[in-house]
Amino acid sequence: MLVSEQSIREAAVRIQPLARRTPVMQIDNWFFKCENLQRGGAFKIRGASNLVLSIPQADIARGVVAFSSGNHAQATAIAAKHVGAPAVIVMPEDAPKSKMEPTRALGARVVTYNRFTDDREAIAAAVMAETGGTLVPPFDHPMIISGQGTAALELLEDVPDLDTLVACVGGGGLLSGSATIATAVRPGIKVYGAEPELASDTYQSFVKGEHVTIPPPDTIADGLRSPSPGKLTFPIIQKLVEAIALVTEDEIRAAMRFVMDKLKIVVEPSGAVSVAAVLFGKVPVGTGKVGLIISGGNTDLEFLKTL
Amino acid sequence: MLVSEQSIREAAVRIQPLARRTPVMQIDNWFFKCENLQRGGAFKIRGASNLVLSIPQADIARGVVAFSSGNHAQATAIAAKHVGAPAVIVMPEDAPKSKMEPTRALGARVVTYNRFTDDREAIAAAVMAETGGTLVPPFDHPMIISGQGTAALELLEDVPDLDTLVACVGGGGLLSGSATIATAVRPGIKVYGAEPELASDTYQSFVKGEHVTIPPPDTIADGLRSPSPGKLTFPIIQKLVEAIALVTEDEIRAAMRFVMDKLKIVVEPSGAVSVAAVLFGKVPVGTGKVGLIISGGNTDLEFLKTL
Repeated sequence: MLVSEQSIREAAVRIQPLARRTPVMQIDNWFFKCENLQRGGAFKIRGASNLVLSIPQADIARGVVAFSSGNHAQATAIAAKHVGAPAVIVMPEDAPKSKMEPTRALGARVVTYNRFTDDREAIAAAVMAETGGTLVPPFDHPMIISGQGTAALELLEDVPDLDTLVACVGGGGLLSGSATIATAVRPGIKVYGAEPELASDTYQSFVKGEHVTIPPPDTIADGLRSPSPGKLTFPIIQKLVEAIALVTEDEIRAAMRFVMDKLKIVVEPSGAVSVAAVLFGKVPVGTGKVGLIISGGNTDLEFLKTL
Repeated sequence: MLVSEQSIREAAVRIQPLARRTPVMQIDNWFFKCENLQRGGAFKIRGASNLVLSIPQADIARGVVAFSSGNHAQATAIAAKHVGAPAVIVMPEDAPKSKMEPTRALGARVVTYNRFTDDREAIAAAVMAETGGTLVPPFDHPMIISGQGTAALELLEDVPDLDTLVACVGGGGLLSGSATIATAVRPGIKVYGAEPELASDTYQSFVKGEHVTIPPPDTIADGLRSPSPGKLTFPIIQKLVEAIALVTEDEIRAAMRFVMDKLKIVVEPSGAVSVAAVLFGKVPVGTGKVGLIISGGNTDLEFLKTL
């Protein structure tokens, strides 16, 4: 299966029982796709439900396994509960409380690991060997990428004449899916990735033209801490994305304040990275219409107090 | 002119150029009408634009005058700018920065006064004598009440089978308009007001059966600090509302945290009062469907840090 306009349109139909069509908010020429108001508080339900809803009935009872820093965990737990599959989620032990607790509340078994010393994929593999469950990877799977692309599809349905689209990049599922659908339905649109300076693996890979792996990053944007872009996502990004914009931690904080102040919505650090890139001129948007995907809103009030 | 289902339906049509149809968010049987996502950050644009858009063309050049603790100020400034009328807004000098600054940014002249020592109506009257402008009162006017009722009308269009509706009460514009339309389109619905214990003028008036005036209240719900219910609003509330529920300052703070955490939206203290009333069992909602109007979202990050 390839990621394509068709696979994304199919995903848009498949995920309807689980994902909401989120609102688009506007400030002048900026159009914000509010995935922080998505079920589970982030776009991740799109990809997770696209994959989980495709699992053959015979495999459902063996359950699903996911490794995730947070939002994908919750999304997988929601989708698994919906189809009646037991879920095991492998999460870093320092994941935000706001992401770990809802995952447990959804009935998933949470296995924690140390981001700096453990290999999460090995841990997930061990769980899969034990249960025979289906892996729901966080980004590097055609069904996941296609699901994530549905956010940009909806945004372009609501605002068909966008000139620019900006999405954050961690492993690259959202960005590669967004770039695939945006360039298909709106030829000529410029798609940019936005990434924290402290987690610049995709930027470095993009510039160097090959996969670069960095040490475990420590940005406040906890959803974007992947150390390297995906094997499937990166070639799509290389082909369809104009550039990767880097933002500082202070710019992310300022963008969070901007979103809360101007749009009256709660955004998590990762979700403000696209906004930071536009707000601080890291992406050339000119006077055209720009779409910004606010990827999630799962943050603690305690963190907001530090802004 | 009387406040009626018809006047509210007419308002719904009239205000379309200025007011948004805000989303309704759901948690189980609770349906939140998100007026914090309204233009100007509060429901107030509904009433202000209903009145301002009714001013005869010959009177527009003399402008408008409003006195307000904040959200009505901004709403009147937006509506005045839309029709090209100069606006003078009389605001308490301790109004939140988040409410005073946008009002000035909209081109309105802001005249400040001391809530504890000055008479804002006298100040507004002096401005009107000087300019000949049209007064846009914050609540006690049929056009204002009818405009505010449109929020409940939209909510009942989206969720027609509500059993209970809860709205906050300051001067009573939102509550009286909501009660008028809700009981008209959904006979049998129970409508409740929610008010801070520290600003219990409507509660006391409701219990006593006559207008009670209290000293200037000091609740954190700065939008609900009116010292007495309106001459027009109170008889409607007496006739159509089941009871006024009182909530403490701590309950308002907890409701603000609840809304930010669960709905991922920013709410101001006044906007959380209806939620506090339901969350803390001050309104008998049972297992029925309850509508809660979140009246506004204009708060400072500095205040959120105190939660």
